Amino acid sequence: MDANKLQSLRHSTAHLLAAAVLHLYPKTKLTIGPAIENGFYYDAAFEKPISEDDLPQIENEMKKVLKTWKGFTKREVTEKEAKEIYKNNEYKKELIDEIVKRGEKITLYKIGDFEDLCRGGHSENPQKDIGDFKLLSIAGAYWHGDEKNPMLTRIYGTAFPTKKELDEYLEMLQEAKQRDHKKLGKELDLFVFSETVGKGLPLWTPKGSAVRRVLERFIVDEEIKRGYLHVYTPDLASLALYEKSGHYPYYKESMYAPITIDDEQFMLRPMSCPHHFELYLSRPHSYKELPIRFAELAKMYRYEQSGELAGLQRVRAFTLADAHIIAKVDQAEGEINKVLDLIEFIAQTFGLEHGKEYHYRLSLGERAEEKKYYKDDKSWDKAEAVLRKVLKNRKSHFVEAPGEAAFYGPKIDVQMKNVNGKEDTAFTVQYDFVMPKRFNLTYINEKGEEEQPIVIHRSSIGAIERVMAFLIEHYAGAFPLWLAPVQIVLLPIADRHAEFAQEAAKELRNAGIRVDADIRSERLQAKIRDATLQKVPFMGIIGDKEIAEKAISVRKRNGEDLGQLKIAPFLEQLLQDIDKKI
Amino acid sequence: MDANKLQSLRHSTAHLLAAAVLHLYPKTKLTIGPAIENGFYYDAAFEKPISEDDLPQIENEMKKVLKTWKGFTKREVTEKEAKEIYKNNEYKKELIDEIVKRGEKITLYKIGDFEDLCRGGHSENPQKDIGDFKLLSIAGAYWHGDEKNPMLTRIYGTAFPTKKELDEYLEMLQEAKQRDHKKLGKELDLFVFSETVGKGLPLWTPKGSAVRRVLERFIVDEEIKRGYLHVYTPDLASLALYEKSGHYPYYKESMYAPITIDDEQFMLRPMSCPHHFELYLSRPHSYKELPIRFAELAKMYRYEQSGELAGLQRVRAFTLADAHIIAKVDQAEGEINKVLDLIEFIAQTFGLEHGKEYHYRLSLGERAEEKKYYKDDKSWDKAEAVLRKVLKNRKSHFVEAPGEAAFYGPKIDVQMKNVNGKEDTAFTVQYDFVMPKRFNLTYINEKGEEEQPIVIHRSSIGAIERVMAFLIEHYAGAFPLWLAPVQIVLLPIADRHAEFAQEAAKELRNAGIRVDADIRSERLQAKIRDATLQKVPFMGIIGDKEIAEKAISVRKRNGEDLGQLKIAPFLEQLLQDIDKKI
Repeated sequence: MDANKLQSLRHSTAHLLAAAVLHLYPKTKLTIGPAIENGFYYDAAFEKPISEDDLPQIENEMKKVLKTWKGFTKREVTEKEAKEIYKNNEYKKELIDEIVKRGEKITLYKIGDFEDLCRGGHSENPQKDIGDFKLLSIAGAYWHGDEKNPMLTRIYGTAFPTKKELDEYLEMLQEAKQRDHKKLGKELDLFVFSETVGKGLPLWTPKGSAVRRVLERFIVDEEIKRGYLHVYTPDLASLALYEKSGHYPYYKESMYAPITIDDEQFMLRPMSCPHHFELYLSRPHSYKELPIRFAELAKMYRYEQSGELAGLQRVRAFTLADAHIIAKVDQAEGEINKVLDLIEFIAQTFGLEHGKEYHYRLSLGERAEEKKYYKDDKSWDKAEAVLRKVLKNRKSHFVEAPGEAAFYGPKIDVQMKNVNGKEDTAFTVQYDFVMPKRFNLTYINEKGEEEQPIVIHRSSIGAIERVMAFLIEHYAGAFPLWLAPVQIVLLPIADRHAEFAQEAAKELRNAGIRVDADIRSERLQAKIRDATLQKVPFMGIIGDKEIAEKAISVRKRNGEDLGQLKIAPFLEQLLQDIDKKI
Repeated sequence: MDANKLQSLRHSTAHLLAAAVLHLYPKTKLTIGPAIENGFYYDAAFEKPISEDDLPQIENEMKKVLKTWKGFTKREVTEKEAKEIYKNNEYKKELIDEIVKRGEKITLYKIGDFEDLCRGGHSENPQKDIGDFKLLSIAGAYWHGDEKNPMLTRIYGTAFPTKKELDEYLEMLQEAKQRDHKKLGKELDLFVFSETVGKGLPLWTPKGSAVRRVLERFIVDEEIKRGYLHVYTPDLASLALYEKSGHYPYYKESMYAPITIDDEQFMLRPMSCPHHFELYLSRPHSYKELPIRFAELAKMYRYEQSGELAGLQRVRAFTLADAHIIAKVDQAEGEINKVLDLIEFIAQTFGLEHGKEYHYRLSLGERAEEKKYYKDDKSWDKAEAVLRKVLKNRKSHFVEAPGEAAFYGPKIDVQMKNVNGKEDTAFTVQYDFVMPKRFNLTYINEKGEEEQPIVIHRSSIGAIERVMAFLIEHYAGAFPLWLAPVQIVLLPIADRHAEFAQEAAKELRNAGIRVDADIRSERLQAKIRDATLQKVPFMGIIGDKEIAEKAISVRKRNGEDLGQLKIAPFLEQLLQDIDKKI
């Protein structure tokens, strides 16, 4: 079914919800009920609060009502008529005022015994088109989204042309809920928040930190191998730096207020490019040195409304695996290719398939909008051509998106699909011909003359916080061995085996394995259950037999039994698998 | 010579300097000339500016004057007499006013033809006592240290009882100057500052960053092996957190101004303890889990006056290798022992000898001062006894320092000596019985009851920035192999050898070696000279013979020739040496 039809179907189902609500709760004041991505909602002021327990009854009523529905009929009314109809509903009256203000016609749509103020866009034959539907949840929502207004009750639902499609969707929702990184983050003790520390500022627990450390070292080491120069630059800089870069007026709203030190104003950085440019400027450069690839695990601070904060997905301070490649114009194509090689290598390491879990979006400039786009048509043409050429030559999966470019040039967005099936820009590769001018970045060319390089702004994996959120959901918390916060837990069968378990743990830990010994006086089955719930890749059971042989009986988290293995060769195997990022 | 006599000798030499200055520049207005650590200075307002080129002439005059000196004679004068004597010197008149205000007597000391306003404290026989002296440098200094006052000329000098002692001191100064981390940092391109980024905020270049990365991973890995749980917590936290910890009123002056986000105030953290406590509080704990050792490479922000900033030694944002050990009271002794084990292991890795390059200072509480010391005599007694016992049992080199403790308990200061022979507290190990109360940190003890742990605040190496400053000076920039920013540089003899050099570099880089290939079209001798100046541990020379054998001719930075070595076994040896931290 095409997207428009699906939307009409869902909008129709919102009417159906409203009709059922009025049957069951006649004193309810309806407001609006649009179709949204993946479903619909209706906001209403109920006389008495309802709960999610009431949803099945409403669903039943909807089913009954649907059987009586034929088709929507439309009529146009005057402002006076409309206000008479809704004389007891201040919300609808406000909507009528808004329609009048916009100079639009006031229309009502009726189906069965239910008529609603509506702009239209319904299914022609709802009874046939609405294959199946489901009410999903209840939430509070301020009228017009403004917290100064009364709080309404929002009922979310979804509808599909067939029961099969609905079932598949509900299953995916269920799966996504199980995989939700906020839920798993708590269950697996990966990160926490503290009211006293502040919103949007996660504290990584030892387990979450272990994963993060492995991730960070993987990125840094891989980038160094590929010729990046990893640096450390301060998270704080004088306001003058962002005025020089021109970021200040543009980014002001997402930057935190300045801190005054002596007579100067300092900002928490929202990006690291100006820092890397200052590093470049610390000495002169020859064409022989280019490209110079400055990389950093760069901590950044950006304002997010507290309502927008979501686990590790949306935070107020994050660490971006960032880099700025300062290159000659004729090196741009090769460098962008290498960046995509790196991105695809990393994605592959996590088992992400190009064209499936992620694809590219080529974001082009909207030349007409002078405020959003730096005026230099020749450079834009060149930059866009290079990016398109690279994507085409690689046979990449990509779409073009006019008007989505950055101020200073076009970019390739890495579009990731999360477990909810939602697509999002994870990070970008940007071609910049403006900053080199602003910062007067130069190099001495073959002829001994000063020339201006271009800059490629890129990440290789995005912000560590978002990657972590993504990977928790991607792996449903069952991290592969090389990333797992605890790689093996040793389980002594009885208290007398605890000492050997602790010694063995020490041996493994000294070899760099992340190992725990569960020496609680619990039954073995309970320890196995706990380790399985914690999704530890390996369990090493230790009893009399094992101690006699300097061995452990190894069990995988999926229940597979590897039998009794001597510690030394097993450790060797573990280290090899970790090295292979299995 | 005892310290008092040495000071009198140096103060006398300051008079000698002043006398010589008046001979050579009669219109000079003298102000003050005290003895200081390692020497003396005199501040004076010269009619015309003088430079360091004038110092030898002044020294000659001093030598002549000294020959005429017998002994100091003192006389007391009235305010009126004194002001008449100094009628043309507004500085001395101000000093006279200050003396009168303090109710002190006005005394003048004369020797030879020179009389000066002075409180006394001279050598009895300067001609005999001043074995040798040297004027060292000239600097500008505001009158009374206030930038609103006129700028005076300060001449620094030093004096010793014997020429031998002076020569030794000058040699040490020369050596320290050569080793100065700011100088070497520039020559070896390890870090830079940018006026636009801001004072006290270093940017680490790729080379400095390489050393830092190795250092950081060494610390983190070693701590993890020893049972620390490494975490990541935010550098920013609500002001409420520091109010809860009680740091805010005490540390306010060294903290930066709050940043307002929505309606809350956030601070750049000056320490990480409250963050780790919040992490501890995120779930309940049993006695079986203790000790819990939270460690972090924790970025912190503290205010330093711009005049106090010095290279990496004093910065405004730094990263402390920090940890907080939350332990039962009866675990304190064992944990402090383990902390000192770790500190000594790390120091040893850098070739620092306990009792020589560093020793401990046991800082005790000043019980009488209630504002500076938390009132709980029993806990103080216990804590101080534990720290003293540990130090005694280990036969540590330590001194006791009454009144130097932290507010919340006694501490062991790690006192390091730098290349100037100056002793400084590098970092501390603190015993804290106050914060657990403030944060209500508890654990469930063997009886199922809530109990309060103690906290040990400690570093293992200090702030990464200061360590780096220290190590640059300690190694005089010649980092050992495992720390060196570039471990080996490959030097193709002719252009035709460049390709092989780059391939070999790639092979070494993929094995984790920090390698450069110097493919400039320069003569081999020039390349060797540059690599030697950059203090690269190994040079690998590549010519026809080497290529035929898949080998390199290896030369060490001290000039030692290791001959032609096949790449594979040489790489193996390098990796082994790096692993051994050679």
